[in-house]
Amino acid sequence: MANADAGRMVTSVVREGQRDEIAVEEPLEIRVDGKALSVTMRTPGNDEELALGFLYGEGLINEPREAGPTTDFAANIVDVTGPLLSDPGQRNFYTTSSCGICGKGAIEQVAVAAPTALPGPVVGRALLAALPDRLRQPGFDRTGGMHATGLFSAEGDLICVREDVGRHNAIDKVIGRALLDGGLPLSGKILCVSGRISFELVQKAAVAGAPILVGVGAPTSLAVELAAERGMTLAAFARGERVVVYSDDGRVSD
Amino acid sequence: MANADAGRMVTSVVREGQRDEIAVEEPLEIRVDGKALSVTMRTPGNDEELALGFLYGEGLINEPREAGPTTDFAANIVDVTGPLLSDPGQRNFYTTSSCGICGKGAIEQVAVAAPTALPGPVVGRALLAALPDRLRQPGFDRTGGMHATGLFSAEGDLICVREDVGRHNAIDKVIGRALLDGGLPLSGKILCVSGRISFELVQKAAVAGAPILVGVGAPTSLAVELAAERGMTLAAFARGERVVVYSDDGRVSD
Repeated sequence: MANADAGRMVTSVVREGQRDEIAVEEPLEIRVDGKALSVTMRTPGNDEELALGFLYGEGLINEPREAGPTTDFAANIVDVTGPLLSDPGQRNFYTTSSCGICGKGAIEQVAVAAPTALPGPVVGRALLAALPDRLRQPGFDRTGGMHATGLFSAEGDLICVREDVGRHNAIDKVIGRALLDGGLPLSGKILCVSGRISFELVQKAAVAGAPILVGVGAPTSLAVELAAERGMTLAAFARGERVVVYSDDGRVSD
Repeated sequence: MANADAGRMVTSVVREGQRDEIAVEEPLEIRVDGKALSVTMRTPGNDEELALGFLYGEGLINEPREAGPTTDFAANIVDVTGPLLSDPGQRNFYTTSSCGICGKGAIEQVAVAAPTALPGPVVGRALLAALPDRLRQPGFDRTGGMHATGLFSAEGDLICVREDVGRHNAIDKVIGRALLDGGLPLSGKILCVSGRISFELVQKAAVAGAPILVGVGAPTSLAVELAAERGMTLAAFARGERVVVYSDDGRVSD
């Protein structure tokens, strides 16, 4: 799916007398029924997807909602129609350009409830390794400063890709798009991220029901643990013809 | 300065029948006088530095405090002796492995007060470009999954380096170490980060009084704006013999 908001994602600066393109980073306030819930540092564009994907990943919504900019568009605010499935309570979410989940005051609250991934699909190792090359990343190509998440079919066809200075935002936007399109849970599909794989990315993928998550970068210990616990296939260091599988459950064939 | 906690930073997993080293990611709860303030997803080690650097960057302390693990060490808790300079109020900080500042409910609260950088030092472009190669990154070398921040003298000598799965944690640890050593503000020194440069990294560097921040990756628009506003020299894409200067104020010589 093409990204209609691409024009807002890149800006120019003059440095040392030359024009240079850099990734835009601006705060976005996410409101629910007019009440501020979260501030995230993100690349503008697809803000409705971002807000809905974020709320879905937090377990606060499970179906599409109306969402859109307020009249005060310049202030970077998106308002989502409630109600929420549960009370976020005193959580004041603030997510920087690289942060996924915020506002939780205790370690026990870090994990969000998520289903165990369903069996299938089974995909070839070479296909998994090739997915990063199939991510279209025009923002990264221009700025060198954006992460991307892509949603792929089991056959390796790109369904949706989103870019953002925050890797958690890119995956939130893809999941928000899938929610709007009636595509959740992501049964039978593959999520591919352009960077490292930390706990929060595995958690978002798990809540969205993705059976396979593959990344270009390294995984963390907690990412591997959570993927194994949820029955998710986690693969990392996907570059060229190589990929390292950290948890499998029979979904990767040679 | 050597990192005595290096042994806790890397763990092994068996994947596809082979042992493989990955970066440890675990939650750390930061308490002040026993009261929970923040949960951050971080690589264990140097937790006191992390807690103090985080609080300093938030404007909540301006001098060293007693800090240490509680008796419940396995639970990943560090307790800092108060009082704080201001009331963090309802902010419940939660920082994932890539997040810097959390718990703020309004866009206006994103920025933390910081001094304008003092003049000097003046450093050669070639020296700036060479700093990433002088970062010692044993954790990254073993796992491919850690960010690093280094503090350098104006002559390019490495004073302190810290690694973490979260880039904001790595800079917090370096600043916390400097606080403990009486080295703040970072007048006349250079901070060097191994990744991209987002708003929160510039903010942390600004609060710590660093006149120069250089990174291996790309900067965001808000990072460039904030650096220019604070009179900080911001340089990015430092690789080999090249570096791109985005804001200068006369500190970079050819």
